[in-house]
Amino acid sequence: MPATLFKILNYNVIKMIKYPDGTTYKNTNNKLISLRNNHANRGMSFEDAINKTNEYYIKSNIALIYKRPTPIKIIRMDRYNTSKITEAYFAEKSTTDYNGIYKSKYIDFEAKSTISKTSFPLNNISTHQIKHLEKVLSLGGIAFFLIELKSIHEVYLLFADFIVNFYKSNKRKSIPFSEIKKNGYLIKEGYLPRYNYLKVLDDLHLTKQ
Amino acid sequence: MPATLFKILNYNVIKMIKYPDGTTYKNTNNKLISLRNNHANRGMSFEDAINKTNEYYIKSNIALIYKRPTPIKIIRMDRYNTSKITEAYFAEKSTTDYNGIYKSKYIDFEAKSTISKTSFPLNNISTHQIKHLEKVLSLGGIAFFLIELKSIHEVYLLFADFIVNFYKSNKRKSIPFSEIKKNGYLIKEGYLPRYNYLKVLDDLHLTKQ
Repeated sequence: MPATLFKILNYNVIKMIKYPDGTTYKNTNNKLISLRNNHANRGMSFEDAINKTNEYYIKSNIALIYKRPTPIKIIRMDRYNTSKITEAYFAEKSTTDYNGIYKSKYIDFEAKSTISKTSFPLNNISTHQIKHLEKVLSLGGIAFFLIELKSIHEVYLLFADFIVNFYKSNKRKSIPFSEIKKNGYLIKEGYLPRYNYLKVLDDLHLTKQ
Repeated sequence: MPATLFKILNYNVIKMIKYPDGTTYKNTNNKLISLRNNHANRGMSFEDAINKTNEYYIKSNIALIYKRPTPIKIIRMDRYNTSKITEAYFAEKSTTDYNGIYKSKYIDFEAKSTISKTSFPLNNISTHQIKHLEKVLSLGGIAFFLIELKSIHEVYLLFADFIVNFYKSNKRKSIPFSEIKKNGYLIKEGYLPRYNYLKVLDDLHLTKQ
């Protein structure tokens, strides 16, 4: 089957890109060719789609939400070039991936993706992150998870209190799709923004003063 | 004169540490010896004192404020160890140093230190940061600078709108101490927290719902 052609605006890609979800892209005359046969949106990694959504929010002055960089532990610097790091390791993140501000409210969330066909495995979430989210909630922030169920091409927003309770109840090691659908909010896929997750907060009147 | 002995709680130091302010410490039997003759608080770098203050806020469930890691651009990974980075560079930060939540409010600030005896040089602040702070303000967040005037051992909180206006008026390349004292709020130095800067927000009733 032929590869699908599509364009992504403001996307700087040189040569070849391999996303964590396994999709590979090739750059040809400023057009991106997906080397897998799936449509444009699905080809992009979930994290990348969320980053694009946040870029859109920032450019449109809707919200200011950034991805926290993965902490890196620096071991060694170059002897002669003080800006060059020659040995470093990824460190464990003790917080969530994203935080920022929307309509005066503090926003804090984690984006996760699963290829499972039945449930979302809780080992995707660390105890540090659960503690962090509990603190956010106790201080009056809005905290949630965005979960991509790849097998059925759906994305849900689940509020942190639900996930925290499920995690702490310790009854199951994963959240069944039925529970996600019952307690979560489906985020429909769009073009720009790709996943308009902040709309859920508006719909629920969480951002009213 | 003899070196001053002091302890810092929860402080992991091995061998020798040189802070950006030029102070050097040596670790001896879990005690830190300042190799310069100044008292404990002044010996610690300003950034470190703010980090300690934030740790105190987090542990006491008062606020959740983190330092954003300096972004690092990774160029090369180890061939055989996928968690080992073998070439990387510091990238320019386009936001402020700190953000988080306090009493449901989104907090965003930058901590700066100057050795000048008369004024705070504006070249310490990037245009990116000014733009970032303007966005925070437009979205209803609380944004400010914490500025340490090392020469007179004083720390001031200055709200972002004042700094942004001063920066954009382009009349001067630095903010005179007299202006800082007139428009800023003095943060007295304590033991724990070292710089209780959130008190200013309470005193001004900025955190009331």
